[in-house]
Amino acid sequence: MPANSVILAYSGGLDTSCILAWLVEKGFQVTAYLADIGQEEDYVAVRKNALLLGAKEIVIDDLKSEFVCEFAWPGVACGLRYEGRYLLGTSLARPVICKGLVRAALERNIGHFAHGATGKGNDQVRFELGCAALAPHLKAIVPWRDAEFTRRFKGRQDLIAYAKAKGFPVPATPAAPYSTDANLLHISYESGMLEDPAVSAPKGIFNMTTDPEDAPDVAQDIEIGFEKGLPTSVKVLPDGAEVSKSPVELFTILNAVAGKHGVGRIDIVENRFIGLKSRGVYESPGMTVLFLAHLDLETFCLDREVLKAMRGLKDSMTDFVYNGFWFSPECNYVRDCLLRGQNDVNGKVKVRLFKGSGILSFCSIPSLRIKFLLSHSS
Amino acid sequence: MPANSVILAYSGGLDTSCILAWLVEKGFQVTAYLADIGQEEDYVAVRKNALLLGAKEIVIDDLKSEFVCEFAWPGVACGLRYEGRYLLGTSLARPVICKGLVRAALERNIGHFAHGATGKGNDQVRFELGCAALAPHLKAIVPWRDAEFTRRFKGRQDLIAYAKAKGFPVPATPAAPYSTDANLLHISYESGMLEDPAVSAPKGIFNMTTDPEDAPDVAQDIEIGFEKGLPTSVKVLPDGAEVSKSPVELFTILNAVAGKHGVGRIDIVENRFIGLKSRGVYESPGMTVLFLAHLDLETFCLDREVLKAMRGLKDSMTDFVYNGFWFSPECNYVRDCLLRGQNDVNGKVKVRLFKGSGILSFCSIPSLRIKFLLSHSS
Amino acid sequence: MPANSVILAYSGGLDTSCILAWLVEKGFQVTAYLADIGQEEDYVAVRKNALLLGAKEIVIDDLKSEFVCEFAWPGVACGLRYEGRYLLGTSLARPVICKGLVRAALERNIGHFAHGATGKGNDQVRFELGCAALAPHLKAIVPWRDAEFTRRFKGRQDLIAYAKAKGFPVPATPAAPYSTDANLLHISYESGMLEDPAVSAPKGIFNMTTDPEDAPDVAQDIEIGFEKGLPTSVKVLPDGAEVSKSPVELFTILNAVAGKHGVGRIDIVENRFIGLKSRGVYESPGMTVLFLAHLDLETFCLDREVLKAMRGLKDSMTDFVYNGFWFSPECNYVRDCLLRGQNDVNGKVKVRLFKGSGILSFCSIPSLRIKFLLSHSS
Amino acid sequence: MPANSVILAYSGGLDTSCILAWLVEKGFQVTAYLADIGQEEDYVAVRKNALLLGAKEIVIDDLKSEFVCEFAWPGVACGLRYEGRYLLGTSLARPVICKGLVRAALERNIGHFAHGATGKGNDQVRFELGCAALAPHLKAIVPWRDAEFTRRFKGRQDLIAYAKAKGFPVPATPAAPYSTDANLLHISYESGMLEDPAVSAPKGIFNMTTDPEDAPDVAQDIEIGFEKGLPTSVKVLPDGAEVSKSPVELFTILNAVAGKHGVGRIDIVENRFIGLKSRGVYESPGMTVLFLAHLDLETFCLDREVLKAMRGLKDSMTDFVYNGFWFSPECNYVRDCLLRGQNDVNGKVKVRLFKGSGILSFCSIPSLRIKFLLSHSS
Repeated sequence: MPANSVILAYSGGLDTSCILAWLVEKGFQVTAYLADIGQEEDYVAVRKNALLLGAKEIVIDDLKSEFVCEFAWPGVACGLRYEGRYLLGTSLARPVICKGLVRAALERNIGHFAHGATGKGNDQVRFELGCAALAPHLKAIVPWRDAEFTRRFKGRQDLIAYAKAKGFPVPATPAAPYSTDANLLHISYESGMLEDPAVSAPKGIFNMTTDPEDAPDVAQDIEIGFEKGLPTSVKVLPDGAEVSKSPVELFTILNAVAGKHGVGRIDIVENRFIGLKSRGVYESPGMTVLFLAHLDLETFCLDREVLKAMRGLKDSMTDFVYNGFWFSPECNYVRDCLLRGQNDVNGKVKVRLFKGSGILSFCSIPSLRIKFLLSHSS
Repeated sequence: MPANSVILAYSGGLDTSCILAWLVEKGFQVTAYLADIGQEEDYVAVRKNALLLGAKEIVIDDLKSEFVCEFAWPGVACGLRYEGRYLLGTSLARPVICKGLVRAALERNIGHFAHGATGKGNDQVRFELGCAALAPHLKAIVPWRDAEFTRRFKGRQDLIAYAKAKGFPVPATPAAPYSTDANLLHISYESGMLEDPAVSAPKGIFNMTTDPEDAPDVAQDIEIGFEKGLPTSVKVLPDGAEVSKSPVELFTILNAVAGKHGVGRIDIVENRFIGLKSRGVYESPGMTVLFLAHLDLETFCLDREVLKAMRGLKDSMTDFVYNGFWFSPECNYVRDCLLRGQNDVNGKVKVRLFKGSGILSFCSIPSLRIKFLLSHSS
Repeated sequence: MPANSVILAYSGGLDTSCILAWLVEKGFQVTAYLADIGQEEDYVAVRKNALLLGAKEIVIDDLKSEFVCEFAWPGVACGLRYEGRYLLGTSLARPVICKGLVRAALERNIGHFAHGATGKGNDQVRFELGCAALAPHLKAIVPWRDAEFTRRFKGRQDLIAYAKAKGFPVPATPAAPYSTDANLLHISYESGMLEDPAVSAPKGIFNMTTDPEDAPDVAQDIEIGFEKGLPTSVKVLPDGAEVSKSPVELFTILNAVAGKHGVGRIDIVENRFIGLKSRGVYESPGMTVLFLAHLDLETFCLDREVLKAMRGLKDSMTDFVYNGFWFSPECNYVRDCLLRGQNDVNGKVKVRLFKGSGILSFCSIPSLRIKFLLSHSS
Repeated sequence: MPANSVILAYSGGLDTSCILAWLVEKGFQVTAYLADIGQEEDYVAVRKNALLLGAKEIVIDDLKSEFVCEFAWPGVACGLRYEGRYLLGTSLARPVICKGLVRAALERNIGHFAHGATGKGNDQVRFELGCAALAPHLKAIVPWRDAEFTRRFKGRQDLIAYAKAKGFPVPATPAAPYSTDANLLHISYESGMLEDPAVSAPKGIFNMTTDPEDAPDVAQDIEIGFEKGLPTSVKVLPDGAEVSKSPVELFTILNAVAGKHGVGRIDIVENRFIGLKSRGVYESPGMTVLFLAHLDLETFCLDREVLKAMRGLKDSMTDFVYNGFWFSPECNYVRDCLLRGQNDVNGKVKVRLFKGSGILSFCSIPSLRIKFLLSHSS
């Protein structure tokens, strides 16, 4: 294993581009690794820039299907929602990136990994715990906690100057006064001007959801099917064909239709793993509808006391995922328990989307069970 | 104590009117007890009917303030929400009725109490546990679990015939094909045609909330103040004066403004205490806004691990209240613990109401604390 | 199905013998069902008496192996201990009796079941919930809650007179001033003179355990092996051969050796399901040693956070079993979760038995794992 | 505040003596701080040695009463026992030491604190979290995690040589092949030869407890009184006078009598906070008896469901204390909740001590309540 090989979790943005160049400068052979988990990106430009900055290779890895099947679906089935509101769009994305990055590192016999997360957030923890669990031999390089790096790059202006000097095409438009993280599950907005919870999120900030006030004046019904707690189909009513092709397509349809009707925005203050309070604005149209529909079906299908027995497990798993412990023995154990509790969560749920709300109108389950249930309450 | 004295939890409706007459027929001296907890009612007619049916006395007891201060406010501060959705509008009302009814029974030296709840629901349990806790000597009479009564009254037609024979003015209009329970906190709709979860709730069913599709096209901001987790003020923005007169007034204002914007409807299947699944449609505009605002402020004001320590207590108290154990030692204990955890939940929360959604826009807390928090995340 | 057929959970004692005769008198065809779960019993005399009292048939069912494998072993592996002390010797026995009794009832097409448990204890609940779960069509007959029966049999003298009249050989010696329940797992002593917690249990009361003050002056070491949390072998040290023949034999050896050294007595006040406080004196030599050994090995083998995740599940399952919900969906769910958490609980534990104490001296697990663990703490 | 002032948690042993000398060598003005929490110590010699090694001052602080009243008693009342076995004798001592040390530091306007705990154990965490909570401005100096210190002192021989060179009287006898921690609550033995769980603890290792095999052949009864869950009196039966003078005296008596009878030894593997498995041998005679007696009385005095509601809180508080979070908001909150649940835990418990066992024989509580309880089960 070459002592100076490193794989960098690369986003294509200013920060990780500077880190790439800085690692090259420090003598590392850098493999830039970019996971495609559904974010909007000009991958051609990203590839060009990475190589320009000195990367030995750039890996653009389509993890969308893995992301949905192995992380988003269990998140829905386990009913994960942090502090009653946040659907873990970023938290669920980090472990799939770790998985892809480690796979790429092992294939290339690389000895280090680097990431561009700062020392005040959750992501540093998630990246480092994830990689440590999957490949303990990979040594972490964390520029934003490195004294030399932080002395050199004291602010955004230093990064811009350095990037320009390296030939990186810094966008002419000024940076947004907040930071974002986007993937198939959500876009988050935080930091900068949003740090003050008394400042409302700017109206034009959102990308996946229409503003509820501008959403269609007519409600839209959709029907979502689940098997063993996992989403399997979606149908846009009244006359849409039922779609159950691929998980990614299903998710994309849900994002589009729920986003059009303004569903899935939250603006909260959350408690970060490392102890800070943090204001986060999120839009997660598809996940919001899936969470609501699953909760409805689960309460319908499962025994009351089984639901109660799962409460503590759901709380624990939510914390494990938020805090970056996806690959830990405790998370594996609790996830197994929760998923095995989903065997009877089968059926369809109708959701009405209207100007920011997702309202359950009813759920239907295989006829035998309905008859059984109704005979009990008739 | 006269052996044949009974106090009847009287609603003025067909069922408890027949029970009243039947108890008189069985030789009981009946005191009809009607708690005013904010429901719409023609109290003059109710009084007249009760006496006509043979009641020795009718007590109409204004419990609105007690209901809000001692039951609704702790419900908000303790963050009670059953199975993730139901805000316990009926569950919180039953203990205040028990309290008033027992008080009236003790003042009159009455030996029995009777209620009109059926043998399949939660309310029988709540009435009987509540009265047993407050006055163990009061003997319960439960007509709907009495073999003689149920042999005689096999269905609604038997009740109507009996009521007419007793001179009770049975309404000419046919009964709604579902049953309702109304108070300051909410109106519930269940049973009858609603028993089949595949049947949507009729559009015209609701009384406290505008249909979201018909709600105003312009959003409305309000600001709610809390002290130690309890609501203390409300202000209709942009230029409404802050109102902090009485808890009942505060609640009434919230119901009006949130109801106008269609906020607070849910349509769910829930797990009853006695083991049945039950479909319930609820509208609880004020409680919905208070729940959301309190959750937001609590997450903002409290330490993460304290919030976690309260999770299990909140789950337990929700079950205690739903299941009718408000006056139990365990509920007293858990309520004390949760309320003592609210000492730091002080501040104001702005909520935007729009076509069925209540969206938090920000919360503000005493300036010293804000400064402290921001200095941590800046 | 004959309308008058009944299967009676028969112990051979005075109470159920009178119930047997009374049921025959009431016109029932009675099948007496006696589960052999390891209690000391003169089965020849029991058989003779049952037929004498008019039983159509007596079934003596050897459930010892089923009892140990399907109930005691999971109890050990799931770490069940009620209120920190009681090892559920009776609670685990009731469901296996229900299982055997229901099996016998179904084979004989019997329509009712009867039991001799009183209206103040846990066992009525356990019998009735167990049978209701396994065979909801079986109708329960509960003499001790039947007005006619309790009017007729007001006390022990009435039972004795009735039994004598029916030809049942009532023992000449007066009854013990307390009641007992015995099986392979334990003997319990309660009621009567023991009801007052200020009265010490009489010295001569015990049957499975030597009084610690009279136990051998030399300690005895034994070694117990576990696989996936379930006991699989026992070895009496220093030179005993390892025994891993059958679960029943293993249990019997443990009872003998731990009992000889006075291990496993407790004298407690516990909280019964139905709300009473109850004083119980128990001796459970084998179960005590197994509980301690399993706890030791489990803490050694499992990850700390997995242990924590199982805590709430263990508490819940303990309550389910104590309260008679063994066959419920929630108990099935939690048991599955706990047993799947035992996959890595493999190894041997050495226990030193001495005058009432069971002290762990060490546990050994497969050498690979030891090396792994030690390398972490060296 | 002098930049070079440091307060050192000093034990008088080899390690902290070398640290003291090393800190002096590094230019610090060292205040040696030694908390007297009931350990056996030649305080005259310790004082002499500290000054000899260059300490500016040595503070010997009698915290015994504070230790028992503010830490041990709440530990008993809250029922704290880690992983089902360890009574937290060291964990409860660390915060009282932090409290005393910080008090001394503030009085002297000292800017740093240092401790001799290693980088593999729990104590480093407990010291640093405790001091950070009480005096965030105190900067930690941790020699055993300092690269320069650990390069210089690679093993015990280096420490001995250094200490001798400094004039410290290194004991002629070789060090015990394990490390100990002693205070009023317990003595722990771990590390060294004890690291291998397959090696039994040497017979002569113990100081507070007689070997059960050598303990008196006659059992000893004692009676312990509690008020609101806190120990208030002890009486050595049959004719000892009841002692309720001071908490420290009470604890000392319990240690003596329980220790004489060999009560309170455990030999376990536990899960340390930092993730290691660790073998610990403990003797805690008084705490063991108090834990058992309190559990007994609590189950007797409290409502079943209140006990259940406290379960999760007890588990949480146990973890908080073990992990060093005594002064955290969450520990304060949970402790308050648990202590308020102890209001009705009043009465006396009789315990029989015999060759290593503490067996409860009965508990008595104020006569009114006993009558109430018995009337329920008669």
